[in-house]
Amino acid sequence: MVGVRTAARVIGHSRRFRRDKSMADGTPTRGRRGGGGAARRAERTSTKIDHARFITRNIPNYEILTEEALAIIEANADVVLEEIGVAFPENEEALALWRDAGAKVDGDRVHIPKGLARKLCQTAPGSFTQIARNPERNVEIGGRNLVLAPVYGPPFVRDADGRRYATMADFEKFVKLGHMSKWLHHSGGTVCEPTDVPVNKRHYDMLLAHMTLTDKPFMGSVTEPSRARDSVEMCDILFDEGDGKGLNGRTALVSLININSPLTFDSIMMGALDVYAKANQACIISPFIVGGAMAPVSVMGTLTQVLAEVMAGVAFSQLVNPGAPVIFGAFVTSIDMNSGAPTFGTPEAAQITYGAGQLARRMGLPFRSAGSFNGSKLPDAQAAYETANSLNVGLLSGVNFMLHACGWLEGGLVADFEKFVMDADQLGALQKLAAGIQIDEEAQAMDALREVGPGGHFLGCAHTQANFKAAFWKSDLLDYKPFETWVDEGCRDTRTLASARVNKLLGDYVEPALDQAKRAALLAYVAEKKASMPDAFM
Amino acid sequence: MVGVRTAARVIGHSRRFRRDKSMADGTPTRGRRGGGGAARRAERTSTKIDHARFITRNIPNYEILTEEALAIIEANADVVLEEIGVAFPENEEALALWRDAGAKVDGDRVHIPKGLARKLCQTAPGSFTQIARNPERNVEIGGRNLVLAPVYGPPFVRDADGRRYATMADFEKFVKLGHMSKWLHHSGGTVCEPTDVPVNKRHYDMLLAHMTLTDKPFMGSVTEPSRARDSVEMCDILFDEGDGKGLNGRTALVSLININSPLTFDSIMMGALDVYAKANQACIISPFIVGGAMAPVSVMGTLTQVLAEVMAGVAFSQLVNPGAPVIFGAFVTSIDMNSGAPTFGTPEAAQITYGAGQLARRMGLPFRSAGSFNGSKLPDAQAAYETANSLNVGLLSGVNFMLHACGWLEGGLVADFEKFVMDADQLGALQKLAAGIQIDEEAQAMDALREVGPGGHFLGCAHTQANFKAAFWKSDLLDYKPFETWVDEGCRDTRTLASARVNKLLGDYVEPALDQAKRAALLAYVAEKKASMPDAFM
Repeated sequence: MVGVRTAARVIGHSRRFRRDKSMADGTPTRGRRGGGGAARRAERTSTKIDHARFITRNIPNYEILTEEALAIIEANADVVLEEIGVAFPENEEALALWRDAGAKVDGDRVHIPKGLARKLCQTAPGSFTQIARNPERNVEIGGRNLVLAPVYGPPFVRDADGRRYATMADFEKFVKLGHMSKWLHHSGGTVCEPTDVPVNKRHYDMLLAHMTLTDKPFMGSVTEPSRARDSVEMCDILFDEGDGKGLNGRTALVSLININSPLTFDSIMMGALDVYAKANQACIISPFIVGGAMAPVSVMGTLTQVLAEVMAGVAFSQLVNPGAPVIFGAFVTSIDMNSGAPTFGTPEAAQITYGAGQLARRMGLPFRSAGSFNGSKLPDAQAAYETANSLNVGLLSGVNFMLHACGWLEGGLVADFEKFVMDADQLGALQKLAAGIQIDEEAQAMDALREVGPGGHFLGCAHTQANFKAAFWKSDLLDYKPFETWVDEGCRDTRTLASARVNKLLGDYVEPALDQAKRAALLAYVAEKKASMPDAFM
Repeated sequence: MVGVRTAARVIGHSRRFRRDKSMADGTPTRGRRGGGGAARRAERTSTKIDHARFITRNIPNYEILTEEALAIIEANADVVLEEIGVAFPENEEALALWRDAGAKVDGDRVHIPKGLARKLCQTAPGSFTQIARNPERNVEIGGRNLVLAPVYGPPFVRDADGRRYATMADFEKFVKLGHMSKWLHHSGGTVCEPTDVPVNKRHYDMLLAHMTLTDKPFMGSVTEPSRARDSVEMCDILFDEGDGKGLNGRTALVSLININSPLTFDSIMMGALDVYAKANQACIISPFIVGGAMAPVSVMGTLTQVLAEVMAGVAFSQLVNPGAPVIFGAFVTSIDMNSGAPTFGTPEAAQITYGAGQLARRMGLPFRSAGSFNGSKLPDAQAAYETANSLNVGLLSGVNFMLHACGWLEGGLVADFEKFVMDADQLGALQKLAAGIQIDEEAQAMDALREVGPGGHFLGCAHTQANFKAAFWKSDLLDYKPFETWVDEGCRDTRTLASARVNKLLGDYVEPALDQAKRAALLAYVAEKKASMPDAFM
């Protein structure tokens, strides 16, 4: 075969290249160091933590729905809000806000006149900055940007030793891995549930971990309104600029407000939203949908419900505080109608995610969807197929904030250490794809084509020498070695390589410096709060 | 977490559903059997081989390049053809054709005046039918269709027992697996190299396998012009309609003509193209590019070269026989600049494939690219990430003929049995995604939203009952069972499930009926040909 022969030739030819990994790794935010040989040697041997900034897309979004379909969904969503309405149970304050805004309230059901919800949504910003304690890690959420955050919520973890309930020690390891993961822009929130810490005190330890072990941005607690307040107060300490004003209106938290689909807004979640919106902290307003169960079995029906729910939730956030930053969320999976199990990385989820992105853009809101979703029990081929399907959809659907971008396993029941680094590596490929295609004269490479001509090869030509370092995305994990080398090294599969990478990253981890007074103040705050309440495990 | 709790609830609820797999599997081409209970029971218990027709996309293509970029590439490709030219070494006949058409021939170099190649390409059809011996398996190549064919060319195979040189017995097993794979529309060509058969006689055995073990369409030999003639002659026997006219102009073969990139047209491949074009058989004119080696390290440079090469090759096919069916091919991978190994499923390959699809559509030609590409040694997570990346790109780039759609491993050195069925299963997801989004009243599901209302669930509502069977793509392989069941069943990973599926499909395999006189004539043809030549192993 021409293919195999040629490939073998390439491998031979390109061995001539000197090894130089310094720039081929991507686009680190740190400037390149000085040009001397000593500096380059130091660069190769020192532990260097590269961090990519958020991704700015330079490629088009994928528009799966026609204008006709979009108009139908928008009209139907208005019908849903007016005729069927949404429920705000056990929440007199919310019902009063709705009543004052012109909605018809019947029991806990809110009927929103056509056009009202969309009008209320107009005060929400199209884009906002979430600050990090290291300003270089600030992220811009909205527009053409994509911010990647890790898995959220699993009660279990899995590593090379198997599956077990998650602990605070696991949580801290994940935060450290996230800090060391170049393509992850965000430290996330509940990367796993630390089940060894009382439920009512977990958020303190989780926030402390995000605040001290990394300098990337993070998420706040939503499991009680009081825990949302605690989250904001801890940020007031961390982000105070020496003037005692704390956050002073800056947005330092993005938190996940799930809607109890269909069409129901849980009072606890709405309480947390209330706290965050009033403090100008951002919330993802996110329908949580397993298709066929929490929404109709059709794409159009599901999108109608998603839009109605998001419009009601975002409108409510703007009733609480006009201008509060919010994100149009859509957590959508399909279902295996034989077993009832949720399924991930499926074509229906892809169609819905593409459509939801279009609806979010038409509302002018940042969009959250997709992730390293899969239903597999192991970080195996099923996990990778399903994850890659969802990550690719996330990129092309225009997602601005991708929660669960790495580490998700077993339908979200498990945060997996190996898969965390496997997925995090793939996120680099998304970044490169999103960077788009250079079309200038250098990129057109006509000189290279002239220099090489028919039958030659490009490995040594001037254009290749000048451009090869940045030309191709390079995995930090996957195996490209010849078969014989791979056998000599023990026939390692991706999991084995990932397990080694987990240990390497944790071994190389260095805690980012934090002002000692702030650290002490945070510890004192948490100690005092914890002492003020008995442990609760439910 | 709301997510986990809700998912658990869904699993409970949906257990109420009766199991019924008869229609949830997709869109079989056979009509549904009669409505009686006995018929339905028979349907569930008999071995039924479903075959999907080729995919017709009802979703948009992804257009990554701007009009400006496309115009630059087209102008630059014309410059390449005129100024640099293409080489047709050791091929006086081809050089004469080019000279007569108005090109400037200098040694074996052909300089094609601007616009000439594109003009010559205009006689190539935008779409054509490849017939199969079962007319239900005919495929339409071009337009909005996607035809999926298996891996092509590997000298090795891998199964649960490991990696070894491929034999004719392996080849036949792959053809049987392809026949049994619902989402595979095409039997392919050299699904693996039967290394136990002399090189000069392999094509007879391979063609016999495709002609007798399946009734799907297949590919012809390209390794010698004489073998292309043999392929056509065997088709004349197989497809004769009783009038002794053989194929009589119908297209029954699609064959892979690789260009020796950069810009060189191998005389053996061109000899095979000559045979096929004169017989109105289809050829894929395919640059074979490992980026940075056989093309510049930039996307624009690679696309310029791809377009120049395809235009020259297609133009040549039309000089041989105006109107001969051809496909715009682009086999493009990136390279690991450290090891020189080709890399697959990468962002650069994605960008080039999307762009090549746009260029093919602007030429009005069917497009071939993408596949189950990966560089992994095992059907593990690396293999699946890289494969899923490429399959998704293939779908959205508008590929019309996807060779290597399943079974590829280790950079194409290995055809893997387990990965064959793993990939083949994922192809069903492509089919469902490509089917697009229904937007009629039933799909809008407003009645379901009204029936269920806030806080309910959709599992039992009328709309779900009426639509759930076709609502969600269903894997025939992947595991969605609860964790405890999965443990009870032995903690099987995807490879283990795939290995069992390989054995199941081969066990269920039934050879499709073939006219005995044709079978005898084919066997006699092959016996006579084989007896006429000594064995050759190089």
